[in-house]
Amino acid sequence: MKPSRFEDALVCINGVFVPPEEAMVSIFDRGFLYGDSVYEVTLTYQGLPFLLDTHLARLKNSANGIGMDLPWSDEELTKLIYQGLQRVDRPRQYVRIIVTRGGGEIGLDPALSDGQNLFIIFRELPLQPKKYYEKGVSLITAEIIRNPKRAVDPNVKSGNYLNNVLAISQAKEKGAYDALMLNAKGNVTESTTANIWIVEDGVFKTPPLEAGLLGGITRATLLDLGEKHGLKMKEEDLSPHQVRSAQEAFITSSTREVMPVTSVDGQVIGNGLPGPLTQKLHDHYRAYVEQVISEEKKKASKYLD
Amino acid sequence: MKPSRFEDALVCINGVFVPPEEAMVSIFDRGFLYGDSVYEVTLTYQGLPFLLDTHLARLKNSANGIGMDLPWSDEELTKLIYQGLQRVDRPRQYVRIIVTRGGGEIGLDPALSDGQNLFIIFRELPLQPKKYYEKGVSLITAEIIRNPKRAVDPNVKSGNYLNNVLAISQAKEKGAYDALMLNAKGNVTESTTANIWIVEDGVFKTPPLEAGLLGGITRATLLDLGEKHGLKMKEEDLSPHQVRSAQEAFITSSTREVMPVTSVDGQVIGNGLPGPLTQKLHDHYRAYVEQVISEEKKKASKYLD
Repeated sequence: MKPSRFEDALVCINGVFVPPEEAMVSIFDRGFLYGDSVYEVTLTYQGLPFLLDTHLARLKNSANGIGMDLPWSDEELTKLIYQGLQRVDRPRQYVRIIVTRGGGEIGLDPALSDGQNLFIIFRELPLQPKKYYEKGVSLITAEIIRNPKRAVDPNVKSGNYLNNVLAISQAKEKGAYDALMLNAKGNVTESTTANIWIVEDGVFKTPPLEAGLLGGITRATLLDLGEKHGLKMKEEDLSPHQVRSAQEAFITSSTREVMPVTSVDGQVIGNGLPGPLTQKLHDHYRAYVEQVISEEKKKASKYLD
Repeated sequence: MKPSRFEDALVCINGVFVPPEEAMVSIFDRGFLYGDSVYEVTLTYQGLPFLLDTHLARLKNSANGIGMDLPWSDEELTKLIYQGLQRVDRPRQYVRIIVTRGGGEIGLDPALSDGQNLFIIFRELPLQPKKYYEKGVSLITAEIIRNPKRAVDPNVKSGNYLNNVLAISQAKEKGAYDALMLNAKGNVTESTTANIWIVEDGVFKTPPLEAGLLGGITRATLLDLGEKHGLKMKEEDLSPHQVRSAQEAFITSSTREVMPVTSVDGQVIGNGLPGPLTQKLHDHYRAYVEQVISEEKKKASKYLD
């Protein structure tokens, strides 16, 4: 097996910190055999975790969604994350928390599990290329549809990501940055790793959770922030045609914040440049990040040695 | 992490044989992070692999289904499997072959992979409890629907098995052996790890591949064998009601062969005992196994030291 490329990474396995090349899991772990796991990704600003409580709440929600307990309290997880962050000591950090249903006798029944496993990956998070924000990115509509809620709920962040892997492959084949995934009704759900938004008649629109998508933390934050700043925000079913003919479009995720989309299925969005309302919303978000991080600084002393 | 329980197991990782407690994979492997892997399970009779060529063909088919190459030839895989079987030297063996898209930079795009990994698990396969064949097993209909072909094709045997994990959880909660999974149209597809069959008006019926299910090797074998022996075999869409009111019902898989079903959603099938036509088909299957294995014996000398 090739050695990990992540010389910059640090991994915490069930509370023990190890270098990336020692970050191994048994092949009998259900996370490996069936993707029977849940995860979260957050990032740091100025070395401090961003909205960690909200991410931990969503981790719990994902676990509940597949009938899995979380044997680690938020407090324990927060402590481990702060310990890891102190060790790596870098301002911009990617933090991935993975909880598997563990090992045990081979078989699908979760009752066979003999105990869960926790993995936390810390690694440097490079800044997104500037050109993505200056020129916008391109999307295609994937032929692969998003897993329906009744099969594997997209609102559970799990180790089953083949659906999205297949969709992004289609995007890459066509030279696009990411793929929009539709539901069985043909409405837009989300991109493979981000939520999708458009501006139509001056209104910010994003598909509702009922369309079958992950309730993004950035998405929820923006809905609130927009309202607060007097912008018109709306959750509404969107057709691919609506996205292609929108005034502005963008995708959102924790690590990408608000990233303008300037082309969908080869069709230019608006005038082909990132839109002013997209930029305005991103500015509000950046200000909010500053505020959250300055509050986190006060809380942090509790966890720092 | 708890030690593996599989003291009886042997694992081959990229051609190297290791004991189960050393059978580890990097947590950066895409198989672990996203379930970006394919697999096959076969078994041995008299220590010899059963229909290995067919299983390897299906492994390739699964890999193609997610745009993955198989860098190991059938000949190389067969040699490794024979080497493992000689080492463990037991008549009844479970063999699981797993191929992941490997490690690399974290991200969904398969192009990030830096090379694939191969794992082969050899372990003892206990005989199925006799009572399952003498009394039949019970099924329930899961509320979770099977992943649709357009999202993650059930005909790909991949590391994304959460859909089935959720369905079997519902079965276990209700004290049933396994769960039937429906498609979005409400027709029956398969159980969580087996194909479903009924006997109706003397005709053996199983849902067509188009319903969205794994093309079971035992299923295909039985369709052929039945025809050959003058039984009436038919691939046909089945409603849950049809299954519940069938004359006979059974599930099929490599490791279970032909297992009678005598209760579905609490409703008794036929007279509540395994049916005579089910038994007849199983007898044909057993005779076929003998024949295949006696042919495998001739081929085996090529691989045995």
